[in-house]
Amino acid sequence: MSVTWTATQKQRLSELDADEALHDQVFADTAEREEHFKQLERKLAAKNKEELLALKNDSLRPLLCQLESRLVDRLTKEGFVQVVTPILLSRGMLNKMTITPEHPLVKQVFWVDKDKCLRPMLAPNLYHLLRDLRRLWGKPVRIFEVGPCFRKESQGAYHLNEFTMLNLVELGDLEGQQEERLRELANIAMDAAGIKNYRLEKDECHVYGNTIDVISGDLELGSGAYGPHKLDPPWGIVDPWVGIGFGLERLVVTVKGHKNIRRAGRSLSYLDGARLNI
Amino acid sequence: MSVTWTATQKQRLSELDADEALHDQVFADTAEREEHFKQLERKLAAKNKEELLALKNDSLRPLLCQLESRLVDRLTKEGFVQVVTPILLSRGMLNKMTITPEHPLVKQVFWVDKDKCLRPMLAPNLYHLLRDLRRLWGKPVRIFEVGPCFRKESQGAYHLNEFTMLNLVELGDLEGQQEERLRELANIAMDAAGIKNYRLEKDECHVYGNTIDVISGDLELGSGAYGPHKLDPPWGIVDPWVGIGFGLERLVVTVKGHKNIRRAGRSLSYLDGARLNI
Repeated sequence: MSVTWTATQKQRLSELDADEALHDQVFADTAEREEHFKQLERKLAAKNKEELLALKNDSLRPLLCQLESRLVDRLTKEGFVQVVTPILLSRGMLNKMTITPEHPLVKQVFWVDKDKCLRPMLAPNLYHLLRDLRRLWGKPVRIFEVGPCFRKESQGAYHLNEFTMLNLVELGDLEGQQEERLRELANIAMDAAGIKNYRLEKDECHVYGNTIDVISGDLELGSGAYGPHKLDPPWGIVDPWVGIGFGLERLVVTVKGHKNIRRAGRSLSYLDGARLNI
Repeated sequence: MSVTWTATQKQRLSELDADEALHDQVFADTAEREEHFKQLERKLAAKNKEELLALKNDSLRPLLCQLESRLVDRLTKEGFVQVVTPILLSRGMLNKMTITPEHPLVKQVFWVDKDKCLRPMLAPNLYHLLRDLRRLWGKPVRIFEVGPCFRKESQGAYHLNEFTMLNLVELGDLEGQQEERLRELANIAMDAAGIKNYRLEKDECHVYGNTIDVISGDLELGSGAYGPHKLDPPWGIVDPWVGIGFGLERLVVTVKGHKNIRRAGRSLSYLDGARLNI
């Protein structure tokens, strides 16, 4: 009779970022399995420890932070201005994005006190700033924010309750060129992140209508939208615009080949992709 | 009969960052006041607009973001490793910091769902990581995090509900040298931030006991503590350590001379210290 890993062993292999092929190994008996597990765990733990030592001795910053810096550097070189807006969002700002009780996203919102929530996205704050900056700067307005967003997720392999969003938006004389400019900006971001293996796909999304998604393998790294758009009028936006949002942890997963996004995000169990309880 | 500014006018002058001396002006009559107000508002609005144009054309990043980058650069050069930990904190982690219902800080905590809160400080997460990293790295362990923290504040001139905390900690063979090392690290951070006008003061604090505070004028920019400390045992920490936490918006206020910290923080009304509704 052959045996497979126990649930606990599988869990541990996953924590240590074992190749998926290793999860399905079959053994002649439990003695053989235990011996294999011991060896494999030791090897994987050593690899995780090596990565943590490389962080300490060489890189000193998690890839998540490094990617943020690289994107900030590149976007400012391209003339985009960084902004920092509130993480606590009023219910009214959500409503203005039409994220009302009927909207699928509303179930994923973390509420704080009565009328505030943790922002599930950066778009409402950027919409709000766009109007003021359009008036004060004239066209074009190029801004971006990078920072924490929050969604109650089923915690699958590619979702996090806390994640880092980068959202850039350009407003200006883009009529008829929105898709082309979106593609340019997506390519700029991917270049800054050092990701070559991606494609751009047209899709349709709940909040933004027609989108151009940035995909690597099966993973959506980012999603771009453009206007004029049905959401624009309540925000006082009349000019054409393009915008893209990226999940930074997904960029990390893509660069590092992690099997689970928890490895890449804010955590007390992982640091820069390596497991800590080893 | 002489008149002073109306409440609305005072509010507007404050929004536009008028010198405090201007708030107490006295006029012969309302006609004179209105004329003065018109001129003053125009001048101040122009100054705010100039600052926003300088952001767009020159600096491209709010000082808050620039200071963060400078501190990250300097701390990694000093051998500190950046970490990124969860913003949502479990009630248990707060309790482990002895922030239980009797503690003054507990009133300032934003609760999310039933058993989570927005971290009011970085210390519990850093405590948690210290033990793992001490085991994996040996001594010294030098880490820091910079990121959002949340406290319900009375919203005075120097408090924000959402603020950016930088917390660094060094654990190692520091017995007897903790105060000296704290002073060194405080000086390093102030040097990186470009702040010369500050002093270090011993004080006592609710959570951390004896502290060394970093003060500029009347404003506490940061606070340092050290161990062995009564909070250490539940976190499994036995080695000496030193740590300092800075409020980044307070560093911005100090560098720029703002009269209100709201100007420096995450906002939809201000961007990089300048008022947007002008």
